[in-house]
Amino acid sequence: MKSAIFAGTFDPVTNGHVDLVQRALRLVDRLTVAVGTRPGKQVLFTQEERVAMIREAVPDEPRLTVEPFSGLLVQYAERKGIATIIRGLRFVSDFEYEFQMALMNRRLSGTIETLFLMPSETYTFVNSSLVKEIARNGGDIAPFVPPGVVPRLREALQAKR
Amino acid sequence: MKSAIFAGTFDPVTNGHVDLVQRALRLVDRLTVAVGTRPGKQVLFTQEERVAMIREAVPDEPRLTVEPFSGLLVQYAERKGIATIIRGLRFVSDFEYEFQMALMNRRLSGTIETLFLMPSETYTFVNSSLVKEIARNGGDIAPFVPPGVVPRLREALQAKR
Amino acid sequence: MKSAIFAGTFDPVTNGHVDLVQRALRLVDRLTVAVGTRPGKQVLFTQEERVAMIREAVPDEPRLTVEPFSGLLVQYAERKGIATIIRGLRFVSDFEYEFQMALMNRRLSGTIETLFLMPSETYTFVNSSLVKEIARNGGDIAPFVPPGVVPRLREALQAKR
Amino acid sequence: MKSAIFAGTFDPVTNGHVDLVQRALRLVDRLTVAVGTRPGKQVLFTQEERVAMIREAVPDEPRLTVEPFSGLLVQYAERKGIATIIRGLRFVSDFEYEFQMALMNRRLSGTIETLFLMPSETYTFVNSSLVKEIARNGGDIAPFVPPGVVPRLREALQAKR
Amino acid sequence: MKSAIFAGTFDPVTNGHVDLVQRALRLVDRLTVAVGTRPGKQVLFTQEERVAMIREAVPDEPRLTVEPFSGLLVQYAERKGIATIIRGLRFVSDFEYEFQMALMNRRLSGTIETLFLMPSETYTFVNSSLVKEIARNGGDIAPFVPPGVVPRLREALQAKR
Amino acid sequence: MKSAIFAGTFDPVTNGHVDLVQRALRLVDRLTVAVGTRPGKQVLFTQEERVAMIREAVPDEPRLTVEPFSGLLVQYAERKGIATIIRGLRFVSDFEYEFQMALMNRRLSGTIETLFLMPSETYTFVNSSLVKEIARNGGDIAPFVPPGVVPRLREALQAKR
Repeated sequence: MKSAIFAGTFDPVTNGHVDLVQRALRLVDRLTVAVGTRPGKQVLFTQEERVAMIREAVPDEPRLTVEPFSGLLVQYAERKGIATIIRGLRFVSDFEYEFQMALMNRRLSGTIETLFLMPSETYTFVNSSLVKEIARNGGDIAPFVPPGVVPRLREALQAKR
Repeated sequence: MKSAIFAGTFDPVTNGHVDLVQRALRLVDRLTVAVGTRPGKQVLFTQEERVAMIREAVPDEPRLTVEPFSGLLVQYAERKGIATIIRGLRFVSDFEYEFQMALMNRRLSGTIETLFLMPSETYTFVNSSLVKEIARNGGDIAPFVPPGVVPRLREALQAKR
Repeated sequence: MKSAIFAGTFDPVTNGHVDLVQRALRLVDRLTVAVGTRPGKQVLFTQEERVAMIREAVPDEPRLTVEPFSGLLVQYAERKGIATIIRGLRFVSDFEYEFQMALMNRRLSGTIETLFLMPSETYTFVNSSLVKEIARNGGDIAPFVPPGVVPRLREALQAKR
Repeated sequence: MKSAIFAGTFDPVTNGHVDLVQRALRLVDRLTVAVGTRPGKQVLFTQEERVAMIREAVPDEPRLTVEPFSGLLVQYAERKGIATIIRGLRFVSDFEYEFQMALMNRRLSGTIETLFLMPSETYTFVNSSLVKEIARNGGDIAPFVPPGVVPRLREALQAKR
Repeated sequence: MKSAIFAGTFDPVTNGHVDLVQRALRLVDRLTVAVGTRPGKQVLFTQEERVAMIREAVPDEPRLTVEPFSGLLVQYAERKGIATIIRGLRFVSDFEYEFQMALMNRRLSGTIETLFLMPSETYTFVNSSLVKEIARNGGDIAPFVPPGVVPRLREALQAKR
Repeated sequence: MKSAIFAGTFDPVTNGHVDLVQRALRLVDRLTVAVGTRPGKQVLFTQEERVAMIREAVPDEPRLTVEPFSGLLVQYAERKGIATIIRGLRFVSDFEYEFQMALMNRRLSGTIETLFLMPSETYTFVNSSLVKEIARNGGDIAPFVPPGVVPRLREALQAKR
């Protein structure tokens, strides 16, 4: 397996995401983290900030590319010439949504295959929304996100007030 | 079983819905497809357009009625004198929501029974939201919706810009 | 819908089964309860006893047939000329097994359709294995099974000692 | 177990909530029902009204405290000196969300333990959103909520028009 | 909450069980661990050995009783005068089985309440069957069971050959 | 990704298994299909027959090795020097079992990673047990298994009578 894409919103990147990136890098030669837009849903960070936070979290890794994308993931994968999509699975509810997307993506592009990885059980309960909720209430998010995310999240929440 | 109701938003109707309508028509003498409103949720098509697209998708079927409805489904069923509601089941998450609604509807109207059908596995991953998302990004939706829906969806998305 | 089959092992029939039979009889003109064998699995009652207990539990219903069957359910349905199979759904785990069987049955016989019904929430937790376990330990099973099953279950368990 | 917290939005309190409060009161010496805010989500009743409706629904119970709270539940629990959180579980989908929150709360506060209780199966299908939807369409909600909620819900919905 | 029962087969006790016992001891004044028989299912250890291994794993805890039991759990609880049953929840599949048992136990004994606790995520994947399978193949089980279980499991498996 | 293992019982191999083998061969340079024993569970075919049927089903593929294995999968993987295990996922119930095994395998061997693939939705409902059940009752299994399996299954079932 030469190349794969790991896509998401990453608003912001968590230690669970970083764990998956590192597991994926052990499996593939080159990994592209594709940072998506979410039309109609609110994000706290701009796409550029979200890209920057991932780059900071996994530095000095020449085999990793982090970049913004928009549109359908299969179209992006075809443009990049990458046939493998990597997704994380933690919960039954993840599973059903992912199953549906993987089948649809296969139908949209016959060459696309979706691989599922499990993050460490340490990160099962960490997700971006919960991290923002904790930060908003002054809780300590340092155990859940890369060090560079902590001050940026504080600033972003203050700016929003 | 003389008559049954198959209700939904159908924004727009997909081949999965058409598959369920055809399965239901083999089981009952008369089927009413009830096209609902969704107060507080955005729809792309008017209720009239959604009714029209279903009629076009299953033409020349005198045993099928397609009509708009609003309010509680059990009240509508009682007004129509129809005691059977047909629902599609594909996923565990569908199942729990449907279970809750079926129990509530039974409580609201002692005579109402809910029947569940499974669509063809070919349509497991097709739903109206995903179809709109694909169309919005210029993907090919022809395999997922009746022919009449393709140009209407293109127009509706252009009009929205 | 003229005719349908409701199949199971019924070792023994419970009030949950009877609830489903009565719901099915409101939907179809004729219902056949097919009492199966379970090769390789232990049953407490003979197929004849299991048939007899269901007949006793729903007496004086000319539209109901109760009979033993063996082999594949779709073959039995085709021999009887009945195209509709009725199944009860209570749990997510039921759901996945039933989904798999319904898809397989459709593949084995293109004309077979499976309908799912939900028993009353009062019977969600009642199943034949649990009822036997309670009876074996001297617990009161009268709330969970038709009256005729209580003495038969007591006898069958004593005979086994 | 001396004290516990049962937290929620209660917009409005249902008979399912009351059932859980009464079950909890049999297990603990003192119960605090904490009525939360939902930043970014619409509620029909003010926090004060929601507190009042719960107090009315479980009157004359000196061991019960009902009060508003905001912020993170673990922070509130620590301020109150209460180490036990009680949650209701009805569905698989509840379960996964609750599992995630319970693990996160444990991480945020090492002394917090979450206990799960099951409401009576009679209330499995009752939730605040469904009750509001039924009331909005003129359906009878008396079987699902405490008596004091019925007129308040009617008024609140009329005021909104 | 004065007293509670934590019941199981414990063939053998794992660190996941011990974690739950310790969590329960923080919530209740007295805990009884009830070590059951499994009629018709094979166990590796006698009931006495299974009791002994739990006692060893949680020594010097005067508030803990470990004892064998047989028959229905609700009958045992009533004989002991204990109204609370504690169960661990880890998976959706656990959840549905436990839900069914808890509802049945409530029906069998109106005073019984079942409380659910979550073990540490560190033990999510540890269960007695898997531990025996690993030991049978010469794998290292020390991270998954109390120290006293390791040599006993080795001996029991050798004796069986 | 140079090498991976796809392990199972394959009693017998189905078209669903073959679909996963072919998907895996697009992702990795070399694939080993490891055909396990199931101590304490009945199988219809010997390990050698099960190996032979897979070899026949995917002929002329120099990058594929099919061989018997026994013991723990992680031990086998370490002996072979392969760090990647590939598993198929179809159902929520698969998912929870696989999740538990993947976490345990990671704990037993820090270098092992489990990748999950989804078979084509055409094979969602096909499994070895169901195929044997259909064959036992004279049903047509040709659509569900590789051609070489059909006569072998017929013979094996006749030999057992």
